Amino acid sequence: MEFRFDDAVPVLRRTPAVVRELLHDLPVHWTDATEAPGTWSPFDVVGHLIHAERTDWIERVEHILRHGESVPFTPFDREGMFAASNGLALSELLDTFARLRAENLDHLLALRLTAVDLARRGLHPEFGVVTMGQLLSTWVAHDLGHIRQIVRVMARQYSDAVGPWRAYLPILTKG
Amino acid sequence: MEFRFDDAVPVLRRTPAVVRELLHDLPVHWTDATEAPGTWSPFDVVGHLIHAERTDWIERVEHILRHGESVPFTPFDREGMFAASNGLALSELLDTFARLRAENLDHLLALRLTAVDLARRGLHPEFGVVTMGQLLSTWVAHDLGHIRQIVRVMARQYSDAVGPWRAYLPILTKG
Repeated sequence: MEFRFDDAVPVLRRTPAVVRELLHDLPVHWTDATEAPGTWSPFDVVGHLIHAERTDWIERVEHILRHGESVPFTPFDREGMFAASNGLALSELLDTFARLRAENLDHLLALRLTAVDLARRGLHPEFGVVTMGQLLSTWVAHDLGHIRQIVRVMARQYSDAVGPWRAYLPILTKG
Repeated sequence: MEFRFDDAVPVLRRTPAVVRELLHDLPVHWTDATEAPGTWSPFDVVGHLIHAERTDWIERVEHILRHGESVPFTPFDREGMFAASNGLALSELLDTFARLRAENLDHLLALRLTAVDLARRGLHPEFGVVTMGQLLSTWVAHDLGHIRQIVRVMARQYSDAVGPWRAYLPILTKG
C-alpha cells in the first residue's frame, strides 16, 4: 500500500485506546514484565511512545516543512523515556499518550498536507534523504510494532506455562 | 510466571475490546489485507478466534473434567473459520467474538476451578499428556499471538512505504 492520510490517520488515532485496553488495570507483573534483563516492559513501551510523540513525529514533519533536506533531523533518543517515566503510574502514562497523540493529530491535520507534500524531502542523520510520506508511514508502522512488542512481552511470561503448546505459538519462539 | 486465574482472566476478558479497538471501522484494505497469498487477514484472524471460542478452549476444559487422559481431545480445525465467516461483516464477527468470550469466561468461572484443578491431565491428540494449567495458559498466549498477527499484517502493508526506516522496524522483517 502507498501512504494515504485516509488510511493512516484512523490507525494513528486508535493506538492509545488499543494500548489502554491492553494494559489498564492489569496486574503489575504483566505491565512491568520484561523478556530479559535490559529489555523493555509494557510500561517502558508506553513511555517510549510518549517520548516519540514529544520529540519525534510532528517535530520531524515541521522540520521537513521548515528545512527540507538542508538540515538533518535531531537524532531521536530511543531510551529517552526512562528518565521521563520515572515514578509515574501507568494510568498517567496512558492518559498522557492519549492526550499527546490527539494533539499531534490535530496539529498534523491543521497543516492540511496534500499528496504533493508527501514527496517533500528531509535529511535523516543516519539514512540520508527520506520523504514526508516515509516519515508518516513509519509513524503508523512504529505504533503497530510496539503493540506487537507489548503482547510479545506479555505472552512470554507464559513460555513455560503453556507446556508442549509452545510448538504452536510463534509469539513465544519467533522475533 | 506460573498460571494463576487472577492473572489470566483479566487478559482473556479484554481481548475482544483490544481487537475491536484495532479494527472496527477501519478501511477494508487494512482489515482484508494479507501478508502473502494463502495467509490470514485481520478479518480471518477474528473468525479464527471465534472458531476457537466455539470448539476449542471451554470444550477442552470440559473434556479434561469429564475424561481426564482417557480420551484424546477432538483435533482443532485451525481453518474452520473460513466457512463460518463467509459473507459476514467484520462488525458482526467482532460482536460475536465479544459475546462468546464473555459467555465462555462465565462458564469457566462457574466451574470454580482451583489451583489443584490446574494439575488435572488431559490427552492432546498430538502432544500426549497436557495439563489444565497448560491449556488455560495457551488460551492467553494464543490471544496475544493473534493480536500480534493482526498488527504485523497491517504494518506490512507499509513495508515499502516506510523507505529506509524499514531497518528500524522489526515488525516488517522478523517473524
